[in-house]
Amino acid sequence: MEKKTLLTECPDDMGLIAKITNICHKHQLNIINNKEYVDNTHDQFFMRTELEGYFNDTTFLADLDHALPQGSKRRLISSDRKKVVIMVTKEAHCLGDILVKAFDGSLDIEIAAVVGNYNTLQGLTEKFDIPFHHVCHEGLSREEHEQKLLEAVQQYQPNYVVLAKYMRILTPNFVAQFPNKIINIHHSFLPAFIGAKPYQQAFERGVKIIGATAHFVTNDLDEGPIITQNVIPVDHSFSAAEMAKSGRDVEKSVLSKALGLVVDDRVFVHGNRTVIL
Amino acid sequence: MEKKTLLTECPDDMGLIAKITNICHKHQLNIINNKEYVDNTHDQFFMRTELEGYFNDTTFLADLDHALPQGSKRRLISSDRKKVVIMVTKEAHCLGDILVKAFDGSLDIEIAAVVGNYNTLQGLTEKFDIPFHHVCHEGLSREEHEQKLLEAVQQYQPNYVVLAKYMRILTPNFVAQFPNKIINIHHSFLPAFIGAKPYQQAFERGVKIIGATAHFVTNDLDEGPIITQNVIPVDHSFSAAEMAKSGRDVEKSVLSKALGLVVDDRVFVHGNRTVIL
Amino acid sequence: MEKKTLLTECPDDMGLIAKITNICHKHQLNIINNKEYVDNTHDQFFMRTELEGYFNDTTFLADLDHALPQGSKRRLISSDRKKVVIMVTKEAHCLGDILVKAFDGSLDIEIAAVVGNYNTLQGLTEKFDIPFHHVCHEGLSREEHEQKLLEAVQQYQPNYVVLAKYMRILTPNFVAQFPNKIINIHHSFLPAFIGAKPYQQAFERGVKIIGATAHFVTNDLDEGPIITQNVIPVDHSFSAAEMAKSGRDVEKSVLSKALGLVVDDRVFVHGNRTVIL
Amino acid sequence: MEKKTLLTECPDDMGLIAKITNICHKHQLNIINNKEYVDNTHDQFFMRTELEGYFNDTTFLADLDHALPQGSKRRLISSDRKKVVIMVTKEAHCLGDILVKAFDGSLDIEIAAVVGNYNTLQGLTEKFDIPFHHVCHEGLSREEHEQKLLEAVQQYQPNYVVLAKYMRILTPNFVAQFPNKIINIHHSFLPAFIGAKPYQQAFERGVKIIGATAHFVTNDLDEGPIITQNVIPVDHSFSAAEMAKSGRDVEKSVLSKALGLVVDDRVFVHGNRTVIL
Repeated sequence: MEKKTLLTECPDDMGLIAKITNICHKHQLNIINNKEYVDNTHDQFFMRTELEGYFNDTTFLADLDHALPQGSKRRLISSDRKKVVIMVTKEAHCLGDILVKAFDGSLDIEIAAVVGNYNTLQGLTEKFDIPFHHVCHEGLSREEHEQKLLEAVQQYQPNYVVLAKYMRILTPNFVAQFPNKIINIHHSFLPAFIGAKPYQQAFERGVKIIGATAHFVTNDLDEGPIITQNVIPVDHSFSAAEMAKSGRDVEKSVLSKALGLVVDDRVFVHGNRTVIL
Repeated sequence: MEKKTLLTECPDDMGLIAKITNICHKHQLNIINNKEYVDNTHDQFFMRTELEGYFNDTTFLADLDHALPQGSKRRLISSDRKKVVIMVTKEAHCLGDILVKAFDGSLDIEIAAVVGNYNTLQGLTEKFDIPFHHVCHEGLSREEHEQKLLEAVQQYQPNYVVLAKYMRILTPNFVAQFPNKIINIHHSFLPAFIGAKPYQQAFERGVKIIGATAHFVTNDLDEGPIITQNVIPVDHSFSAAEMAKSGRDVEKSVLSKALGLVVDDRVFVHGNRTVIL
Repeated sequence: MEKKTLLTECPDDMGLIAKITNICHKHQLNIINNKEYVDNTHDQFFMRTELEGYFNDTTFLADLDHALPQGSKRRLISSDRKKVVIMVTKEAHCLGDILVKAFDGSLDIEIAAVVGNYNTLQGLTEKFDIPFHHVCHEGLSREEHEQKLLEAVQQYQPNYVVLAKYMRILTPNFVAQFPNKIINIHHSFLPAFIGAKPYQQAFERGVKIIGATAHFVTNDLDEGPIITQNVIPVDHSFSAAEMAKSGRDVEKSVLSKALGLVVDDRVFVHGNRTVIL
Repeated sequence: MEKKTLLTECPDDMGLIAKITNICHKHQLNIINNKEYVDNTHDQFFMRTELEGYFNDTTFLADLDHALPQGSKRRLISSDRKKVVIMVTKEAHCLGDILVKAFDGSLDIEIAAVVGNYNTLQGLTEKFDIPFHHVCHEGLSREEHEQKLLEAVQQYQPNYVVLAKYMRILTPNFVAQFPNKIINIHHSFLPAFIGAKPYQQAFERGVKIIGATAHFVTNDLDEGPIITQNVIPVDHSFSAAEMAKSGRDVEKSVLSKALGLVVDDRVFVHGNRTVIL
């Protein structure tokens, strides 16, 4: 008996749930968990089906393709552990949280490597017996630096790249290598405080809540599809530095939660929005 | 074209989603929204299906009964507005919130009447042109008082009875008239602080969060199935009275939210737990 | 015995707390509650002192003025109930919440009148025996309309003006009449989604939290000092209309909380930020 | 120039703030931060004063003792880093969070050692170059085991002992060695679900929120003074095991936050309640 997850996305139509579940039934696959959603604004149907049984992928997918309308996308995903490369700069909290969660099984991932533009976090990474690549940007053009980063990352053929407070902007060339596969944590509740120094911006604006946003990276800075967000209350007594310190816990929990949803195959990207089933 | 909601609850079995959606499909009923849940601990299947189309209730339900396993319960509920009687004592905030929400359409209910053991809230109720019944408990035995309350409530044949800070305990006889149809707001995050004066208990225990719980009323005081809960932070500077004042907003929003879920036919009761789809 | 609140704001200096509390002590005024805050970025000192005793305002304030550094501001505020005028358009939830809270004492205010550019909420207002002024903007220039609004409001000499979902932008002339005395509720967690249709903007951006912000009105749209903010989680299944409906509860609780802090003399405005003691 | 924190607790009296701040002023100590609180129920005054300057502890404290009423307690605490011993059983998340936070400076503590009744977390601890003591309880009476634990802990003379998911109950003898110095994390929002298996209890009760509580350990199980609490929402779809998994993040953040407040000298214990300034 195997477990696999079927993700279906297609134009909405009458009887889709019946069609798909009939095919599962015909193949004697038990539905452990099923969630569907119809985006009525765009007439788009999304369904995530956890299945258990003996799979004949070829005939199962052929039956689905026959039944589903034109323009359908479906993926049947095995329950293999996902491989992740983490990119960092200097701050330890997000990396540390992912390292501990992978260590104790809270996140079901294999951390293939950590890549940093500084070596500040080499010691922390290597405590967990994970290779650390220091790709210094000094003396290099942006293109040269990114080429080296790309090589460091791609050698591991990761399923996902996690920017765990990686503080440089990636170029379209880098992003294009990993479409909807780079997850970033931004230290504000987007779309507030796009760009640099969001805590300083938050302090100056005098907000009473601060937050963090995990999103897929696209070529528009901090504009990619949002996966998770959370906030914490602050008050007048918080300096920008104190906001940054208090924000660490929410940043790391938001990033880890997003990563967990993604590697659990729960996140559809549709336009600039995510559907999470 | 009509809209109706189908609630299905039955022992779990393979192919249930396919069976039910096939029948909907056969009857040319469009599924606007569908959610299902399997309680693996009890092998129980729950499904809520919003349907649109031309209904032949008799044949549709007969087809379902034929397809579903023994021990199934299914209800096909029209989208008629639900009728509600509200019971109160002296506090205005929960009643006021429901009155304003029914007035502006935030809650899709008809408030048939308000019944109070004091007349404190008669003025507020009548501002909204709703009949108020003052059923004073003075000089009456508990049984006599409840008999009068019951008459006051039952003349309206309500779908649900809402205890909006009604501060007396109802007897099993009263409760038995409205199985899973009485919704109470308790001013603590149950099961903490069952019974009288929860804010005083919370103050004495020195908790840092207080909350409220909306639940169906059973014969076990504050032990019925929980529908919604929420909390707010407090600190050492809150007296019991200040907790009570701060708690009003969370009490009223928790009760209104629970009432909205119930009248929207989203709440299944299973044992002492609710499944909300 | 009277109760008054002393608000002190001045350049920071050594021994300020000692100086002020010594003067209170000398005048035999008991300090019921005291909070102070130093903004180290701007070297500014803030203190809020609740006092009880027999006041000789003139000599007490003279002693303070003698002791405090140049550039100090201090106000000794009686515990009289504040007078408020509420401005509305069509939505009932914020107005309804304030009406019920004033009715049951949760907000210690006198609602002098409600002024609307539509008459939609006249019925709700008059249920509570409060005068409603319908100042229609049709056929009038912006200036003419505002002049009529201003007259409607100013006849009541209110301490504060509350924009309870008043959906038109006020001109600098109007705002200038009530410096730091107009409180607005904006239906987003500012600075995200400034301007019109924030829920539509939030839907399109695909955010996972929505919120509301109460702030003082200045001449920069939605840029005034923030008093309170709060948020609620949403997910992909919320349309813009459903966000708006869910947002009502957070809007009204944020606005009522801000109003409570303001009329309780807890809010200092310093630059574009608030200090709340 | 040094920084120290003065904690004052005494029966409430008129002019206390003036007296204390006058003495600070007289000693030319600058007040960087000051917070006070009066518990009107018990007529008790609390004040926390962060001071900067050149300290003569003896004369400063003598002046205070002269000025304060009988029954006063005052402590002048240097800003030295606090020494902590952590006790664990098998779960990594709370320990991991504290290790990373001490590593990156988010928690200003020295972790002297980790003591476990299992050796499960030895590897994680030693990654951070911190000694781990495995004190196995097998084959030992409770008294013998605790005696060994006590020796393992006391050799480090810690300021505080942190129970980071240490799953055995400590005896009064152990607790008596560290009055108000042992911090425990309990995996429920106390006082709900005291004792064993709180997530299983929460599942069975069908609650819609779960939480965690950090508290000082006393001889009454899970009844000690609460320092911090927080909650997260759950729904019917969470099994007890899924609640436990989701609860890890809230457990660790609540414990770390409590520890931060305690080592920052912000927590007064008064009866069974904490005052946090």
